[in-house]
Amino acid sequence: MKTALLRRVTAELVGSAALAAIVVGSGIAAQRLSPTDAGLQLLENAVATALGLSVLIMLFAPLSGAHFNPVVSLVESGSGLRSWRDTAFYIPAQVIGCILGAILANVLFGDAAVSVSSTERLTPPHFLSEIVATAGLIMVIFVLARTGRSGLTAAAVGAYIGTAYFFTSSTSFANPAITIGRMFSDTFAGIAPSSAPGFVAAQLIGGALGFALVRWFYPDRRIIPNAK
Amino acid sequence: MKTALLRRVTAELVGSAALAAIVVGSGIAAQRLSPTDAGLQLLENAVATALGLSVLIMLFAPLSGAHFNPVVSLVESGSGLRSWRDTAFYIPAQVIGCILGAILANVLFGDAAVSVSSTERLTPPHFLSEIVATAGLIMVIFVLARTGRSGLTAAAVGAYIGTAYFFTSSTSFANPAITIGRMFSDTFAGIAPSSAPGFVAAQLIGGALGFALVRWFYPDRRIIPNAK
Amino acid sequence: MKTALLRRVTAELVGSAALAAIVVGSGIAAQRLSPTDAGLQLLENAVATALGLSVLIMLFAPLSGAHFNPVVSLVESGSGLRSWRDTAFYIPAQVIGCILGAILANVLFGDAAVSVSSTERLTPPHFLSEIVATAGLIMVIFVLARTGRSGLTAAAVGAYIGTAYFFTSSTSFANPAITIGRMFSDTFAGIAPSSAPGFVAAQLIGGALGFALVRWFYPDRRIIPNAK
Amino acid sequence: MKTALLRRVTAELVGSAALAAIVVGSGIAAQRLSPTDAGLQLLENAVATALGLSVLIMLFAPLSGAHFNPVVSLVESGSGLRSWRDTAFYIPAQVIGCILGAILANVLFGDAAVSVSSTERLTPPHFLSEIVATAGLIMVIFVLARTGRSGLTAAAVGAYIGTAYFFTSSTSFANPAITIGRMFSDTFAGIAPSSAPGFVAAQLIGGALGFALVRWFYPDRRIIPNAK
Repeated sequence: MKTALLRRVTAELVGSAALAAIVVGSGIAAQRLSPTDAGLQLLENAVATALGLSVLIMLFAPLSGAHFNPVVSLVESGSGLRSWRDTAFYIPAQVIGCILGAILANVLFGDAAVSVSSTERLTPPHFLSEIVATAGLIMVIFVLARTGRSGLTAAAVGAYIGTAYFFTSSTSFANPAITIGRMFSDTFAGIAPSSAPGFVAAQLIGGALGFALVRWFYPDRRIIPNAK
Repeated sequence: MKTALLRRVTAELVGSAALAAIVVGSGIAAQRLSPTDAGLQLLENAVATALGLSVLIMLFAPLSGAHFNPVVSLVESGSGLRSWRDTAFYIPAQVIGCILGAILANVLFGDAAVSVSSTERLTPPHFLSEIVATAGLIMVIFVLARTGRSGLTAAAVGAYIGTAYFFTSSTSFANPAITIGRMFSDTFAGIAPSSAPGFVAAQLIGGALGFALVRWFYPDRRIIPNAK
Repeated sequence: MKTALLRRVTAELVGSAALAAIVVGSGIAAQRLSPTDAGLQLLENAVATALGLSVLIMLFAPLSGAHFNPVVSLVESGSGLRSWRDTAFYIPAQVIGCILGAILANVLFGDAAVSVSSTERLTPPHFLSEIVATAGLIMVIFVLARTGRSGLTAAAVGAYIGTAYFFTSSTSFANPAITIGRMFSDTFAGIAPSSAPGFVAAQLIGGALGFALVRWFYPDRRIIPNAK
Repeated sequence: MKTALLRRVTAELVGSAALAAIVVGSGIAAQRLSPTDAGLQLLENAVATALGLSVLIMLFAPLSGAHFNPVVSLVESGSGLRSWRDTAFYIPAQVIGCILGAILANVLFGDAAVSVSSTERLTPPHFLSEIVATAGLIMVIFVLARTGRSGLTAAAVGAYIGTAYFFTSSTSFANPAITIGRMFSDTFAGIAPSSAPGFVAAQLIGGALGFALVRWFYPDRRIIPNAK
């Protein structure tokens, strides 16, 4: 593998690990520190995730694109913006990174390095929530790209995830890699392995739906925003 | 209908649906997860709404103007910035979108798809609150437009709604379409149909007041900011 | 009075009223909705104030400078950036505006229009807190101006007040006009008239200290930032 | 000492004092006002710190670089961006500043000016947390510098610290000067002197790790971001 590609792939690996450590770690902190109010736990988890994800996108966007999410990589390659070879390397890096990040979070809080989540999450409302959450995420990323405003992506994706934690019942995983990573922590942010395939399926459906909406609303690959 | 107009109208429809889903959905989450503190519920609802509305404006501003609000469309056409034909299509799209979004929120959380709110909200302080809240919203949008700073609109409108949820007693609906949509969810963010007409009347008064203030403070259609 | 001056003075009046309505109104909401946790009340009040103040600065900065604060006006005229005539009109407008805004907040929440606060606040730690809080506020505003970054002022002042509510024991009034306005609401954000003169004195001392620090750190009226 | 250097050193002194006052002061406020929920305390402390640190970086970045942190100064000099003479003056200024800031916070809240913290914090998970937290901080600062986006540093560092308070078990001191300063307040944010050397060691390791990652991901001293 050439150095430039290796750099990009390690960026996805390290960025995905950091994302999972933020999501799982802040979930553990919230669960321990705010034991009596689940909404406050989710608020702490959402604030930490929104801020952290924005920072991670700022860090890695110039290098790998800062996907940390197989759905994003698939849409980017599917629309001709990135080679399929990149995506073939990115996806395993994202998945391995998220698993390592969940383990890191466990260790940072003194838990066993690996514990398998027992939190069953797959219900019809959660399945639908993941479709909607992922469609929205894809719209945010690719509408900003198509309208020449990628400088807003870091802030917008953080803000989007912050709201999506609350307006869906699934708390918006919206990412197959983080879904797999979250299996490895039996804490606030965890998901039982039996629920993961359904979540991933919903996320893939949501990604396709989101990109169809992007193409409907902004058919040109690149337009100049006419107003704001 | 020509494709360009259809695109704009569906942008208002989908954006309004997303806005209502965010407002109603995060309200359901807050109510369920933080059952003992109404202020914490409102904080969760406000944070989710502020972040989500900012993102929606970023998504749809270059296409439809991202109104999601009949008062905004009326002021825009009334001041010659947009054709009345657009507004004639926008307003039903906004209302239908907000109804669909409230229904979507109900479904995302596993509730009955439609429930009619029983929350009576129309009191004199709430009526006055809606006037003030809507006047402020119109000022934010049109002052930024008149001073050539529409790039700040997404962040500013989100921030404004975040504060307005707390400084008014009505929690600042400030939007006739979302008022109608909120009738269709008997949850935290709902409003009884009997209270809705009064809220809409107050919002129309507030819109007129807000635009009068815009014209007083910034009489030129477009000025260059002299300081910041 | 010429129209241009009248416009600026009414901008200070309306902006100050809005600021006081936000501070007092969100305080009433917080007190009512989160009765059991004073920190949560302050968090709600701080978030609402930070967001609202940022928006108000965006709205009125191009017109009046968006002071809403006699200390800011005094420093601006004292350093030759604005005529003393402006400041002579601004200060009464700020004070009257803040009183009207506190009254508006009372009415928006269905309280008696005027109630005199019984909250005694003047203690040595609070006096010192107001000195520090006001010095910091003046530094934020005038350092950004002197380094050619006034475009950041709205966000920075909002962020500053958000932190200052928590890192001082007085919750950082930092503004003589808002101090006077807060006398007129016997609610969360109120201050007893007997405490107000001490707060105002501390704010004036803090303003002088802050501007001395600005002049030490950035002696040139306008420099180009060399780094960020 | 020449005036220009003195100005930079006092900027580090005053900025570090302000940072410590914000961290310790908002911790005292949170502890007093939200006595029943440690997560809410940390949320209040994190919000205040994130906002305050962002503002402090805006204030002092054009003058001293706004480090307030010996690890940042060491990496900057180690990578040739700043003279070692600056760093030799900066580090004592940062340490003294943080001590003075902690004392100021005690006084602002009416506590004894100096109290030595009795909060033991040094455990293996906390040690590892400090390594990770500091590595992340160094990455944020130096990746943005190397990619020509230092204008984002103030917001990004604030956001980073906001998330790091929650995703680590140590609450991310990530700064030897603030670690020393926090010894002087036996309150929420304090650290017992016996725990401080371990924290500082972890921070130095984290700084080296972080800068190694910066060099791997962005080997060129300055690149043009290719995407966002």
